[in-house]
Amino acid sequence: MVLRRRLAEAIGDHRSDMLIVHVHVQVKPGQEDAFVAATLENARNSVQEPGIARFDVIRETADRSRFVLVEVYRSPEAALRHKETAHYAAWRDAVADMMAAPRNGVKYENLFPADEGW
Amino acid sequence: MVLRRRLAEAIGDHRSDMLIVHVHVQVKPGQEDAFVAATLENARNSVQEPGIARFDVIRETADRSRFVLVEVYRSPEAALRHKETAHYAAWRDAVADMMAAPRNGVKYENLFPADEGW
Repeated sequence: MVLRRRLAEAIGDHRSDMLIVHVHVQVKPGQEDAFVAATLENARNSVQEPGIARFDVIRETADRSRFVLVEVYRSPEAALRHKETAHYAAWRDAVADMMAAPRNGVKYENLFPADEGW
Repeated sequence: MVLRRRLAEAIGDHRSDMLIVHVHVQVKPGQEDAFVAATLENARNSVQEPGIARFDVIRETADRSRFVLVEVYRSPEAALRHKETAHYAAWRDAVADMMAAPRNGVKYENLFPADEGW
């Protein structure tokens, strides 16, 4: 990845290696506190992974049953490795029955700040 | 804000003062590069504001006409002050005719990391 980035910089192509995923979740009524507890535990462990730059958890103010996990991976490979961790598996199983609808992940590339700024 | 946070901590209420806004934009075909240029200029200026913790710009990989501005304010007041800046006004005017649909801002409260981690 470092080599690819240096090559990209040398030829003036500043495309980012990062992969950003926004996971949108709607939780069943009454399950919010349990969802928050399981999700914060997963976030605290996830930010320890070397390939994860950020793992933010935010809650919609207008509809407090809705959450977004803002997952910022240094590379697509880091996203695959995250799915192999024990904490991801524990979170996935813990929240499976808490969701009002299937969760929806949307993938993004980074434009700003530079990769070093995450 | 600091006093309110300390009081909140003293009584065990860790609610965040932060306001996070995800601004979803879809850009007209052919306007993407101009939108990126204007939006990066705005982001570079916005992160200089003392009340702004982050001002990320990301582009959807499955539909490259779609962008999200991830605006992280230290307080609701900081969001109001941002709208009073010259760089915000310049961005708003520059991109007004580039959008395929009205932009949509969704507000969130912070759950993780702690406010200091943004």
